[in-house]
Amino acid sequence: MAQPQQDDATTPGKPPLRVGMVGYSFMGAAHSQGWNTVGRVFDLPRRPVLAALCGRDEAAVRAAADRHGWASVETDWRALVARDDIDLVDICTPGNSHAEIALAALAAGKHVLCEKPLANTVGEAEAMAEAAEAAHGRGQVAMVGFNYRRVPAIALARRMVAEGRLGALRHLRVTYLQDWLVDPGFPLTWRLRKDMAGSGALGDLGAHIVDVAQYLAGAPLVGVSGLTETFVRQRPLPGAAADGPAAGPGGLGTVTVDDAALFTGRFAAGTVASFEASRFATGRKNALRFELNGEHGSLAFDLERLNELAYHDHTEPAAHAGFRRILVTEPDHPYLDAWWPPGHGLGYEHTFVHQARDLIHAVAEGRRPEPSFADGLQVQRVLAAVEESAGKNSVYTPVS
Amino acid sequence: MAQPQQDDATTPGKPPLRVGMVGYSFMGAAHSQGWNTVGRVFDLPRRPVLAALCGRDEAAVRAAADRHGWASVETDWRALVARDDIDLVDICTPGNSHAEIALAALAAGKHVLCEKPLANTVGEAEAMAEAAEAAHGRGQVAMVGFNYRRVPAIALARRMVAEGRLGALRHLRVTYLQDWLVDPGFPLTWRLRKDMAGSGALGDLGAHIVDVAQYLAGAPLVGVSGLTETFVRQRPLPGAAADGPAAGPGGLGTVTVDDAALFTGRFAAGTVASFEASRFATGRKNALRFELNGEHGSLAFDLERLNELAYHDHTEPAAHAGFRRILVTEPDHPYLDAWWPPGHGLGYEHTFVHQARDLIHAVAEGRRPEPSFADGLQVQRVLAAVEESAGKNSVYTPVS
Amino acid sequence: MAQPQQDDATTPGKPPLRVGMVGYSFMGAAHSQGWNTVGRVFDLPRRPVLAALCGRDEAAVRAAADRHGWASVETDWRALVARDDIDLVDICTPGNSHAEIALAALAAGKHVLCEKPLANTVGEAEAMAEAAEAAHGRGQVAMVGFNYRRVPAIALARRMVAEGRLGALRHLRVTYLQDWLVDPGFPLTWRLRKDMAGSGALGDLGAHIVDVAQYLAGAPLVGVSGLTETFVRQRPLPGAAADGPAAGPGGLGTVTVDDAALFTGRFAAGTVASFEASRFATGRKNALRFELNGEHGSLAFDLERLNELAYHDHTEPAAHAGFRRILVTEPDHPYLDAWWPPGHGLGYEHTFVHQARDLIHAVAEGRRPEPSFADGLQVQRVLAAVEESAGKNSVYTPVS
Amino acid sequence: MAQPQQDDATTPGKPPLRVGMVGYSFMGAAHSQGWNTVGRVFDLPRRPVLAALCGRDEAAVRAAADRHGWASVETDWRALVARDDIDLVDICTPGNSHAEIALAALAAGKHVLCEKPLANTVGEAEAMAEAAEAAHGRGQVAMVGFNYRRVPAIALARRMVAEGRLGALRHLRVTYLQDWLVDPGFPLTWRLRKDMAGSGALGDLGAHIVDVAQYLAGAPLVGVSGLTETFVRQRPLPGAAADGPAAGPGGLGTVTVDDAALFTGRFAAGTVASFEASRFATGRKNALRFELNGEHGSLAFDLERLNELAYHDHTEPAAHAGFRRILVTEPDHPYLDAWWPPGHGLGYEHTFVHQARDLIHAVAEGRRPEPSFADGLQVQRVLAAVEESAGKNSVYTPVS
Repeated sequence: MAQPQQDDATTPGKPPLRVGMVGYSFMGAAHSQGWNTVGRVFDLPRRPVLAALCGRDEAAVRAAADRHGWASVETDWRALVARDDIDLVDICTPGNSHAEIALAALAAGKHVLCEKPLANTVGEAEAMAEAAEAAHGRGQVAMVGFNYRRVPAIALARRMVAEGRLGALRHLRVTYLQDWLVDPGFPLTWRLRKDMAGSGALGDLGAHIVDVAQYLAGAPLVGVSGLTETFVRQRPLPGAAADGPAAGPGGLGTVTVDDAALFTGRFAAGTVASFEASRFATGRKNALRFELNGEHGSLAFDLERLNELAYHDHTEPAAHAGFRRILVTEPDHPYLDAWWPPGHGLGYEHTFVHQARDLIHAVAEGRRPEPSFADGLQVQRVLAAVEESAGKNSVYTPVS
Repeated sequence: MAQPQQDDATTPGKPPLRVGMVGYSFMGAAHSQGWNTVGRVFDLPRRPVLAALCGRDEAAVRAAADRHGWASVETDWRALVARDDIDLVDICTPGNSHAEIALAALAAGKHVLCEKPLANTVGEAEAMAEAAEAAHGRGQVAMVGFNYRRVPAIALARRMVAEGRLGALRHLRVTYLQDWLVDPGFPLTWRLRKDMAGSGALGDLGAHIVDVAQYLAGAPLVGVSGLTETFVRQRPLPGAAADGPAAGPGGLGTVTVDDAALFTGRFAAGTVASFEASRFATGRKNALRFELNGEHGSLAFDLERLNELAYHDHTEPAAHAGFRRILVTEPDHPYLDAWWPPGHGLGYEHTFVHQARDLIHAVAEGRRPEPSFADGLQVQRVLAAVEESAGKNSVYTPVS
Repeated sequence: MAQPQQDDATTPGKPPLRVGMVGYSFMGAAHSQGWNTVGRVFDLPRRPVLAALCGRDEAAVRAAADRHGWASVETDWRALVARDDIDLVDICTPGNSHAEIALAALAAGKHVLCEKPLANTVGEAEAMAEAAEAAHGRGQVAMVGFNYRRVPAIALARRMVAEGRLGALRHLRVTYLQDWLVDPGFPLTWRLRKDMAGSGALGDLGAHIVDVAQYLAGAPLVGVSGLTETFVRQRPLPGAAADGPAAGPGGLGTVTVDDAALFTGRFAAGTVASFEASRFATGRKNALRFELNGEHGSLAFDLERLNELAYHDHTEPAAHAGFRRILVTEPDHPYLDAWWPPGHGLGYEHTFVHQARDLIHAVAEGRRPEPSFADGLQVQRVLAAVEESAGKNSVYTPVS
Repeated sequence: MAQPQQDDATTPGKPPLRVGMVGYSFMGAAHSQGWNTVGRVFDLPRRPVLAALCGRDEAAVRAAADRHGWASVETDWRALVARDDIDLVDICTPGNSHAEIALAALAAGKHVLCEKPLANTVGEAEAMAEAAEAAHGRGQVAMVGFNYRRVPAIALARRMVAEGRLGALRHLRVTYLQDWLVDPGFPLTWRLRKDMAGSGALGDLGAHIVDVAQYLAGAPLVGVSGLTETFVRQRPLPGAAADGPAAGPGGLGTVTVDDAALFTGRFAAGTVASFEASRFATGRKNALRFELNGEHGSLAFDLERLNELAYHDHTEPAAHAGFRRILVTEPDHPYLDAWWPPGHGLGYEHTFVHQARDLIHAVAEGRRPEPSFADGLQVQRVLAAVEESAGKNSVYTPVS
C-alpha cells in the first residue's frame, strides 16, 4: 500500500503558495472551490495550500474551514496578515473593508486577491492601486476579483477582439439583469443601505459590466451619462436592524441605494456603449449580457448560457452569414484544454478556478496580473462618474 | 358559367372605400399589398378599392399601378387630392412632403393614412395633429403608419400589459438594430443628408421604437437623455449627386445625420427605459427588440422572429417559471382568427394588411384611429427632445 | 385621369394563364392568395388569371369566389375541366378525388397543380404519374403541391446540399409535430376515418417530411421500417355523422387512422434517416423540423421559424465553429430578390406565391416541374412501405 | 492559530466512507472531482475519504492520486478489493472488466459504484444484478453510474412526470449526438473494435439515452426496432496496434462497431419512443436531447444547455401558452439548495458530485440506490434487443 505525500495538496513537487482568506460566505465558498480545484485540473508552477480562513465568529469560521478544507482559522484579519506562513491574502469581505485589509496585506509583503468592487470610494481605490504598484516593484502581485473575465466564452471574446476579427468597434451593449428585489416585501438588508453598501445595482452589478466592457474593448471609457432609479423606496426592516438611521414608521426603512442604473458611455476610439444594471428585471436571474458590433463582425453573450458565445462574421457572403453559437468547450478555447471533452460544459464556479490559475501564474512569474488594482480603480472611476452624472440630470461626465 | 360581380373588389356588397396613394416604392408596395389582401382575409364594413396611384414619373407610376392593381394613375398629388372619387389618401412619400399633402387632403375632406415619421419637424407635426383633430369633428379619420403596432405579437404584448399581467412596469429596453451602413463604401444617399432626411437612425428607426414603447406602456415619455454618433463621416457621393452642398474632396461627401442614437427615458409612473437605434449593428438585419419588466412579469420580442412573444409569469412558483415562447398564431391572438391554423406564421407584409383593416374599421365607425396624428406628434416631440439632449451633453430634457 | 388596362391582372402585357381551381377551404384560400399575389411580386412570363372557382355548394363557392377574386364559379368539376377558357386546373380537394380530377384535366389538355398527397393509393398515383408523363409530351405541366419546397430556407438548404457544402450525407432527422388531437374530446372528423382520409398523421404530415427529405437528399429512400400508433381510439362522433361504420356505443366512434407514425429509412448512398409525424406532440403547432449531418457540415430547420436556417460549417477551425442562424431574407436567397429588405420576414402563405411562380415558369418554358407527379408517386410508395412495415412488426421494407 | 482536524475530509464529525477507485482516466477524473467536492457542498451522513486509487501503471496512478488527492495507490484491483480500510469500490474501468471487479467487491462486502454500461453482455449484467440483490440483503449498496440522472434539469423533469404534470405520456424522442468520428482520418482506437468495446455509439451513447428514457417514463421499454450503421468502415490503425485481427491492407483496419444506432420503442402504457445515438452528427458535441409529450404538457432538454429545462403547460389558455425555459438554478430544484444563487449555473462535472451525494445517502440509509444494478441490467437488455433487431431487418423485438 503506497502512500503519496501526506499533504493533501495537488500539483505536488511545486513550491507551495499558502493562502489566507478573509470572509467565508458566498464569495468565500466560491473562492474556496477555486483554490481546492485548481491544482486538480491545471498544471501549476506553485502549489496552492489552503492555509487559513479568517472570520470574526470563531464557531462559524471553524465550521466553514472544516467544510472547505482550510487548515487553520483566525478571527482577526490583522493576525492573519501578520502570519509568516501566509503568502497570499484573499479578501472576500464586503467592499467597505477592502482598502484597509489590502493595504495592510501589501505592506506585510503578501500577494493580494481582492474581491470586486475594489473599494467603495475612488479615494480608497487610488490608495490601493498606488500601493499595488509599489508592491509590484517588490515582486508582489495584487489582483482584483472580476471573475467573469475567466468565463471561457468571455476570454474567447476578448481574444477575438484583440485579433482584430471585429475590426473597429462601433457598439457595446452590456446589461446585468437580476430580479431578486422585485418583491416589495424583501427586507431592507445591508445591501440596500448606502452607508454600508456604497451603492446598489450600480456598484454590485454595474462594476462587473464596466469591467467586462473595458476588458473586451481593450480600452477605458472616457465619459458617461447615467440615470439611477429606486423603484421601491420603503422596505420592511429586518429584525433587530430596525434601529438604524434609515428606520421609518411602521417597521419600514428607507432604501438608500439604486435599484437600477442605466448609462451610456464613449470610448476614445469612437465606440459608443450602453449599460444597464438592475435587480428588478423580472425573470432574469443572472443575465450579464453583451453584444459587440464591429466593422467586420459581432459577438454576443449571456451569462445564463455561459458555455456559449455568439459570433457573426461579416466577411462571409451574406447568403451564408449569421450569428453562430460557438460552444466554448473546445481544446483551443481559453482554459479548456485542461477540462472535459467538447460539449461537457463548465459552471459558474469554475471562473474561480481559472482566476486562481491565472493568479498563481502571475505570482510565479512576477507579472502584473489582469485585472490589476489599477483596472479596479478605473472601474471605480467610471462608477463615480455615473453617479455624478445621475446627480446632475444625466449630463455627460468625463471619467477622471 | 356563373359570374360574380365584375368589380374585382373583395368584401362584396359593402360600400367602397376608394383609396388614392401617393408614392410607390418600398412603402408603396407594402401598402398596396395591404389594400389588396385585407378584404380577402377579413370581414370588413367597407370594401377597399385601389382607385388611384400617384407619382411624378408617369411611366414608372403606371408600371407600378399595373403591377399592384391600382385602377388609375396621377402624376400630381394635388390632382389626386382634388378628385371626387377618392375617399382616403394614403401618403407613402418621404417625410418632408407629409405635412403639405396631409393638410391638403384633410382640407379636401379625405381620410388620411400617413407613413411614419409623421413629419420632419415638430412644427409640421403640430399643424397636422391640429388639422386631424378638426377633421375628426367632420367625421374624417387620420392615422399615422406605425405598422409595427399591427404585429400580432406586439398587439398581444399591449393587451397583456393593459390587462395588468405585468403589474407596474419597471423597465423598458427597446432597440432597433440594422447594419446596412457598416460598409464605408456605401454611398451618400439622400437618407444620409440632414437637409433631406431630417435625421438618420433616430428618425427612421428611433421613431418606431419610441412609438412601440409608448404604445406598450400606454403612456408618454416625459423626458430623455440622448447621445448620437456618426461613425463614418465621409462617404462616396452617388453619381450625379456630387454637386450638392455636402460634397467634399475626392468624390466624398459629408454624412450629416446620425448613424446611431442611444437614449434613456422616463415615464411619469416611474418606469425607466433605454433605447438604441443603429444602422451599424453588424449582423442584425431588422432587430426591433423589446423587453418589459413589471412587478408581476416580463415580455420580450424580436422583430426578426415576429411570430413569437416571450412571456415570464412571475406569479408562478419559481420552480416552474421561466420565459415561455408564445407562438402568436392562435385564434385568440390579435388578428389571427382570420388567418391560418396555429403554427402557420405571418410575415412582415401582413402588418400592412392589419393596418388597413383597423383603418377601415375606424373610418366606418367614425372613431379616432390608433395611432392618431396626435400619437405621431408625441413621437416627434420625443425625437426632438433626444436631439436637443444630444446637442447639450446628454442632459436630461423634458418632452415638451 | 389615366386608366391602366381594365383587366385587374398583374404582369400586364404577358399572355394570360387562366386558372380554374377546385376546392375552396383551407388549401383553396392559400392557393388563391398565391395566385393573387404572385404577379404583384414577381416578373412572370405568363399572367395568371383567376378564371373560375369550383365547389359543390353554389352559395358557398360564390362567396369564396367573391372574397378571393375568382371571376366565375362552377359547381361541377367536370364542367370546369370542359371549359375552353381554362388553361390550368388547380386541385385543392381531399385526396380521394385527386386522381379522377387530375386524370380528366390532363386528358382535357390542361396543366394541373394537384395538392398533396398526390393520391390516397399507390395505384392511383401510378396512373396519375403515367398520365402526367404522357401529357408532358404534349406540352402540359403537372405539379404536385408540396409547398414546403418553396420555403426559402428549405430551398436554400437544398441548394447548399447540391453545392456539396455538406459533403456525403450521414443523417437526416425529420419530424412534423402538431398537437391538435391531444384533447380526447376532439370529434371524430373525416380526417380520422380511414375510408375517407386514407391514413392519419402518416399521410397528412408524413407525406410532407418524406418529400422534404428526398428533396434535400436529392435521392429517393430505398427502404423503411415503421411503427404507427393510435393513442385515442374512441372519439365523440360529430353530429349527424354518427351513422357511419365506425360508430360505437355511447356516441363514440372508432378512430381508424394513426395518430402518430415513426419510421427510419435508408438512402442508397448510405445515409440513414429518422422520421416522426404526430398530431399528439403537445405544444408543437407546426414543427416540421429537420437536421442534416454531412461530412463537411450540417443544416437544421424548424417551420415554426421559417425565415431561418441553421448551418454548421465543419471546415472552419473548431475554435470559431458553431451552428449559425442564417436569416433567410437576403437578396441572394431563393425567391428573396423580389421581396422586402433583409430582415423583413415572409410567412407561411408565401410558399403558395412561390409555388405559383415556379409553376408559371414551368408552363411557359415547357419544363417538367418540381415536384412532378412522379415525385408525388415516389412519396406515396414510401408511405405505403411504411404502412406495410408497420403491419409486419416494423420489418425493414424496400420501397418498391 | 486554531487547527481544524488534520484529516482533510469534509463533513467533519460524520463517520467516514472510505472509497477505493479503479481507473483514473476521463471517468476517474470526473469521479474524483465528485468525491472531492461533495462534502464541501452538501451536508452528508457519511464523510467520503479518498482512500485509494488503483491502476496498473504505478507511476501513472501515483501521479493521478497526487493530482486528485487520493491517499494511497494500488496497482492490482484485487488488492484494493481485499483491503479492510475500503468501504466502497468505485469502478471506472472499461466495460469488459466491470463484472469481475464488481462481483469481487460485492463478495468482499464492499459497496459498489460501477460506471455505465453495467457490463458488455446481458449475461454479465444479470450476474451483477443478482449479486447486488444478494448484497442488498447484507446492507451493501450497488449503484450504476448513469450520471445524467443527476443533471438537475433531468431530475426536475422526472419529478414533474412523477407528479403527473404531463399526464399520460404519448411520445419520447431522445437523441445523443456527438461528432468526434466525422473525420475519416480518426484512428481505429479500441473504442471502434467490437472485441474490446462491445459496441459503438449504441453501447456508449445509447446506454445513456435508454436509461434516461426509462427513468423519465418511470417504466421499462417493452420492445424495440433498430438499425445500425457504420459510415466509415476502414480507418488508420493507431501505431503498434496494427497487428490486431482487424488489420487490413495499407495500414487500415476495419471498424467493427456501429457509428450510429437508430431505434424506436414502446412502453407498456402505450407510449412510443424514438432514439438516435451517433458519433457522426457534425457540429453536435454532446447533444443528449429529449422531448416528452404528454396529454397535459411537454418537456424538452439539451445537455449542451444543461441548466435549462423547457416546459409546456397545456392546461393554460392557448393564448398565453408556450414552451418556457426554466433556468434550473432555483433553491426548489433538485440539488440546488446547496449551491449558488439563482442563475449561477452548474457544469457537467457536478453530476458526479450529485451522484456521490445520492450514493452516500443510500449507503447511510441502507436503501436500494437509483439507478441500481437491476436498472443497469434493464438497459443492457434493451441494447441487446436493439442489436438483435438490427441484425434481423429491424423487426420489432421484445425486451426479454
